[in-house]
Amino acid sequence: MSTVYPIVPGHEIVGRVTKVGSAVTKYQPGDLAAVGCMVESDGTCPDCKAGFEQFCPNLTLTYNSTDKYLEGVTYGGYSDSIVVDERFVLQVPSNLDLAGVAPLVCAGITTYSPMRHWGITKGKKVGVVGLGGLGHMGVKFARAFGAHVVVFTTSPNKKEDALRLGADEVVVSRNNEEMQKHAGSFDFILDTVSADHDINAYLNLLRRDGNITLVGAPEKPLEVGAFSLIMRRRSLSGSSIGGIAETQEMLDFCGKHNITADVEVIPIQKVNEAYERLLKSDVKYRFSIDMASLKSE
Amino acid sequence: MSTVYPIVPGHEIVGRVTKVGSAVTKYQPGDLAAVGCMVESDGTCPDCKAGFEQFCPNLTLTYNSTDKYLEGVTYGGYSDSIVVDERFVLQVPSNLDLAGVAPLVCAGITTYSPMRHWGITKGKKVGVVGLGGLGHMGVKFARAFGAHVVVFTTSPNKKEDALRLGADEVVVSRNNEEMQKHAGSFDFILDTVSADHDINAYLNLLRRDGNITLVGAPEKPLEVGAFSLIMRRRSLSGSSIGGIAETQEMLDFCGKHNITADVEVIPIQKVNEAYERLLKSDVKYRFSIDMASLKSE
Repeated sequence: MSTVYPIVPGHEIVGRVTKVGSAVTKYQPGDLAAVGCMVESDGTCPDCKAGFEQFCPNLTLTYNSTDKYLEGVTYGGYSDSIVVDERFVLQVPSNLDLAGVAPLVCAGITTYSPMRHWGITKGKKVGVVGLGGLGHMGVKFARAFGAHVVVFTTSPNKKEDALRLGADEVVVSRNNEEMQKHAGSFDFILDTVSADHDINAYLNLLRRDGNITLVGAPEKPLEVGAFSLIMRRRSLSGSSIGGIAETQEMLDFCGKHNITADVEVIPIQKVNEAYERLLKSDVKYRFSIDMASLKSE
Repeated sequence: MSTVYPIVPGHEIVGRVTKVGSAVTKYQPGDLAAVGCMVESDGTCPDCKAGFEQFCPNLTLTYNSTDKYLEGVTYGGYSDSIVVDERFVLQVPSNLDLAGVAPLVCAGITTYSPMRHWGITKGKKVGVVGLGGLGHMGVKFARAFGAHVVVFTTSPNKKEDALRLGADEVVVSRNNEEMQKHAGSFDFILDTVSADHDINAYLNLLRRDGNITLVGAPEKPLEVGAFSLIMRRRSLSGSSIGGIAETQEMLDFCGKHNITADVEVIPIQKVNEAYERLLKSDVKYRFSIDMASLKSE
């Protein structure tokens, strides 16, 4: 496969198939297709066999992994084409805006997968900590699963946007009184924050058997009070992307529920400016690079 | 109900019923019975209704809770009799040694409950961190469930005892090489240690979807690296005792599998000496106080 219209290079790629190898059965030239964080795994380890390619010990990442076939490393979507085994190519629902589809194959699956794993369905109370690239997808999925969605943010000025994205309530996490109102009430909290933060304040909001899943990765270890877990038998866990089958399931779900990421489309010429803005969290909520702009170089 | 032969006072009490109220249906004078950590709960909250009395917001603990009927606090088994609602009285299998039964209603249920919750069955690989009052029960239960049991201890001199109690393997946790051999292989680890320790070293031993449950409560927060959880979708959780129905289930299981705690029986006159020894972890593995010794005062 080769993409001619990849959006959000790196590891969130969407485009059209230009050529297929003779053994390819699932794709034809012209098909819409996406490639996420992974381009190869051994296919034989217990994780691969169980559909968890993301945990394969011999995984090749789409970006900055050792390239087994060419010298150097993989460059992902920072390229005008990419060749990928069809096992790692995903079908894209035709009703969705392509620029908004690209982030689904990383930010989307990263937030969809733990909610499926922890059984988020209608009537559950779900929190989403942080409203960025991951968080805004978390809100959309939790809403689509029928949950009551509460966004936790340090920025009161994100309230309006959180509600627009589908949140039922917004809590400013620095307001201890607002936090306390929700003590012991959440089934599940998706924590997307990669800055240092007090995890016990969120653990205490969980009901019996409630879970917090980390998808952001703070550099400093989180300080976890044992009693925050022992009371109400709570759990803290982590999750990374998802396997290929689940990623396809997520894309199909997005097609059915008309879900895409909110993106700002930029030409490749603005990539450095976009990077500077990213560092300041100044994006709603992902940049998508239109690779057609490469041709104007 | 009133116990005439309570062993291990405080909150692990076993004895014989001496009197029953007119509304009591489950017990008769002369019956063996046990009382654990709880003597009353509201019976109406969602936790009580679901059989999780231990999480009831209006729980009365057996020891040092406000006594709703008399002035002061509850004194548990530090007494020659105790009056308890039959809802909080447990039936004791007749084939077990009574001194060894008493710790089952706290140390026993605390280790049995999380193993049942996390699905420990034949073929699972289970770790037990720390070999004390809780840990030695964890080993016995994991063994009885049919798991492959590995004990982690900082004391090489506990190896022999761990094997005697039912461990298949013993790992000295200070030996990094020994630890690494088990990387990514455990389904479940029961962490009974209440001293400060490196939880990431154990998280890294879990396989995909593996869980560590804390039943010891270190005073200092545990430092948890996000990637230890994110990789392999691991989880860290906590657990306290269990509900009344599950505690009865555990006692019945002990009757069937002939499981009791290893105890050292002492007279009440040695309670201060025993306390000093406890502080030095010098007991295998629980002290049981024979309250008949009160009469020789």
